[in-house]
Amino acid sequence: MTTTYPAYIEQNKDRFIAELFDLLRIPSISADSKYAPDVRRTAEWVAQSLRLAGADNVEVMPTGGHPMVYGEKITDLSKPTVLVYGHYDVQPPDPIDLWHSPPFEPVLKDGKIYARGACDDKGQMFMHIKALEMLMHSGEPLPVNLKFMIEGEEEVGSENLGRFLEENRAKLRADVILVSDTGILSNEHPSICVGLRGLAYMFVDVTGPNRDLHSGMYGGAVANPINVLCDMISSLHDEKRRVTVPGFYDRVVELTNAERAAMGQAPFSEAEFLQELDMAAPMGEEGYTTLERKSIRPTLDVNGIWGGYTGEGAKTVIASEAHAKISMRLVPDQDPEEIAQLFQKHFESLAPASVKVKVTAHHGGWPAVTPTDSVAYQAAAKAFEQAWGKTPIPMREGGSIPIVALFEKVLGLKTVLLGFGLDSDAIHSPNEHYGVFNFLKGIETIAAFHKNFGAMPQA
Amino acid sequence: MTTTYPAYIEQNKDRFIAELFDLLRIPSISADSKYAPDVRRTAEWVAQSLRLAGADNVEVMPTGGHPMVYGEKITDLSKPTVLVYGHYDVQPPDPIDLWHSPPFEPVLKDGKIYARGACDDKGQMFMHIKALEMLMHSGEPLPVNLKFMIEGEEEVGSENLGRFLEENRAKLRADVILVSDTGILSNEHPSICVGLRGLAYMFVDVTGPNRDLHSGMYGGAVANPINVLCDMISSLHDEKRRVTVPGFYDRVVELTNAERAAMGQAPFSEAEFLQELDMAAPMGEEGYTTLERKSIRPTLDVNGIWGGYTGEGAKTVIASEAHAKISMRLVPDQDPEEIAQLFQKHFESLAPASVKVKVTAHHGGWPAVTPTDSVAYQAAAKAFEQAWGKTPIPMREGGSIPIVALFEKVLGLKTVLLGFGLDSDAIHSPNEHYGVFNFLKGIETIAAFHKNFGAMPQA
Repeated sequence: MTTTYPAYIEQNKDRFIAELFDLLRIPSISADSKYAPDVRRTAEWVAQSLRLAGADNVEVMPTGGHPMVYGEKITDLSKPTVLVYGHYDVQPPDPIDLWHSPPFEPVLKDGKIYARGACDDKGQMFMHIKALEMLMHSGEPLPVNLKFMIEGEEEVGSENLGRFLEENRAKLRADVILVSDTGILSNEHPSICVGLRGLAYMFVDVTGPNRDLHSGMYGGAVANPINVLCDMISSLHDEKRRVTVPGFYDRVVELTNAERAAMGQAPFSEAEFLQELDMAAPMGEEGYTTLERKSIRPTLDVNGIWGGYTGEGAKTVIASEAHAKISMRLVPDQDPEEIAQLFQKHFESLAPASVKVKVTAHHGGWPAVTPTDSVAYQAAAKAFEQAWGKTPIPMREGGSIPIVALFEKVLGLKTVLLGFGLDSDAIHSPNEHYGVFNFLKGIETIAAFHKNFGAMPQA
Repeated sequence: MTTTYPAYIEQNKDRFIAELFDLLRIPSISADSKYAPDVRRTAEWVAQSLRLAGADNVEVMPTGGHPMVYGEKITDLSKPTVLVYGHYDVQPPDPIDLWHSPPFEPVLKDGKIYARGACDDKGQMFMHIKALEMLMHSGEPLPVNLKFMIEGEEEVGSENLGRFLEENRAKLRADVILVSDTGILSNEHPSICVGLRGLAYMFVDVTGPNRDLHSGMYGGAVANPINVLCDMISSLHDEKRRVTVPGFYDRVVELTNAERAAMGQAPFSEAEFLQELDMAAPMGEEGYTTLERKSIRPTLDVNGIWGGYTGEGAKTVIASEAHAKISMRLVPDQDPEEIAQLFQKHFESLAPASVKVKVTAHHGGWPAVTPTDSVAYQAAAKAFEQAWGKTPIPMREGGSIPIVALFEKVLGLKTVLLGFGLDSDAIHSPNEHYGVFNFLKGIETIAAFHKNFGAMPQA
């Protein structure tokens, strides 16, 4: 990797870090209403920071919840427009006692910035503001038009984002969306996330007898809803660990052998993966590697189960009810609503006559894939080559970022996930941190992206 | 049925019920250590009640766990001695929200006493204390010598009872043991339980990854301990709903066709049984009737299961651990220790390499059968004829009273199960209740038993 930075970053890096520290000191915990004034204050801070970097028309826009910060720098309407998305709210810091330093008193240690939000997403979001500042000081015209949309509700499900997008379609018109809220494989192996799985999350309830029964007096003669639920759940996978819901795989786009081979080039040690989890063996769909199973294949997992007596000691009861939360991760082109319906129909059909079953769809999200042959992806890949000296590995990841599908649906725009975090950054956990190298290199890469994207012929 | 009571019961019944209410108000939940002071207080209450009824040498005796209440009334060593066993501890009241009135605030409604323990076993145990009181007030010499042994750990497996019996063999010397902790078919069809199932109660723990994981980042590639536990539990029954643990049926004594035909004569309506439970169909071992499934056949039921996220809403987690409590009801001549070992070995063998499994035997009890040609059984049958005007039907029941086998093993004594509960009493369930008729008729029947037993030539 290239460990030098452009002159402007070298000259200003201490100030960049000091400014980020100021931002990290404000506890913008969106989940807890008693921090609402801090969340608001953070929005104002981000707005002011955008203004100082050179953005115009900066405003803190009200939503049904925490405000949205908007700003733009439109210099040449013949150039393409990049819409930057980020978020300034953070996760709650609990459990507090596991932090080695207070979560809202940032410290620099061994080249890493420790604080809640250091990586997710204050650190990554702030890189975009500093990239704008750097481009404004380059002595050259801005290579693209820039718009910024920095929200304060990402950690609580972006509840008001959909409506904001719908109400501001014209204002948000752009050619691509750029988001830094994901990670790279490692600093030695930079990568770009090009795929995310979707989700269909279901609740199931099985009712046997109309009340809890004594297992001695009734056992053997009545359906035990826990046993029945286990039977039903067990039957959701076949012996190849494929999901048995009819139609589940119908819309799954199979990768070509070439694509799978390219994926197999990513540095990944199954032995280390298992050792880190203290597991003796992997488990998953036959015919796919561990890396494939957790990224390009759909899954079905029970996320929670409960029923009967779960306290201390023993109780000889046959429960009246048993419950489970079951979610399926989806891949292109599975439709979360269709999958929820297929699941519901199938699960209901599994129920023996001796029980009643209720299936409820809780929430869902579309899978998303960024085409690697797009201008924007090419601009991002080239930016990595310039800044890191390496071609990034296109990676499909297993998690879901529902906003990517939302952007496509409401704004008709593809998203490039230009994130610089590491798996080890402990986001959402105590001692969250972000490497200074990643922060500064991120600024450089983002600025390079804008230059590349502005210079490339648009499709 | 005979709905009048002897004069002493008629004159004192309101006080009897008021006293039982006092007893029911103390939450003597033996399974939960935070109720230990209440359990202790209940023991003191029972001791005092025995003293007031006329018992001598009453003491609250320490054990390794909750105390034992002992008392006696020895009046004539030439007469036979009856050792009464009962328990003053109760099941936890969960799920609390399904109770129509608080479990430890007894109410009288439509001739029934509603409270946790109303039937099992405070109500049934207290009948014996009131029967003593009644005999003491009869103006006649006590027909038998009486000993009382009322324990506080029946609902948690009577862990310290065996040792107590061994340490107090001389003190407990008797001719028969009398227990009211079972039921009758109906008030129109009184019956005596002559067979009980045994029990082997197991805890199982399945561990997958060493920590909770994000189901998006890891789902599909690692063993989900909840799914695996469901697979393992599901495989414990075959398609005929027979238990698949190897060797499980090896010692089961099959009843003759004649015995099964006699059993089939008992008044039982499967349609009513199902309607009362609001179930559309029965479920159980192929080739056996519902009545047989719940009495003469061994079973396997999950009594509790839990793992992952069970709170409000959704969490996309793959849990590190999943747990279940599983019990098997046993029939003669299955050996609870052997069955526990067979289960453990089999369950461990079911675990895929990707998880760790721990199996713990919690407690067990032997199945038991009472001979109907004994003096004690005849005294009990005659007592029913006198008090109820009907010959009781000898019935095998599905529950377990492991102490019956223990009494035989340690004290060499047979037990008569003179219980007066009804299937619909909802013991171990919300809204447990006990009929005032059954409570008062039980006192009458118990007193009649003592008279009959004292008058009959001993074998």
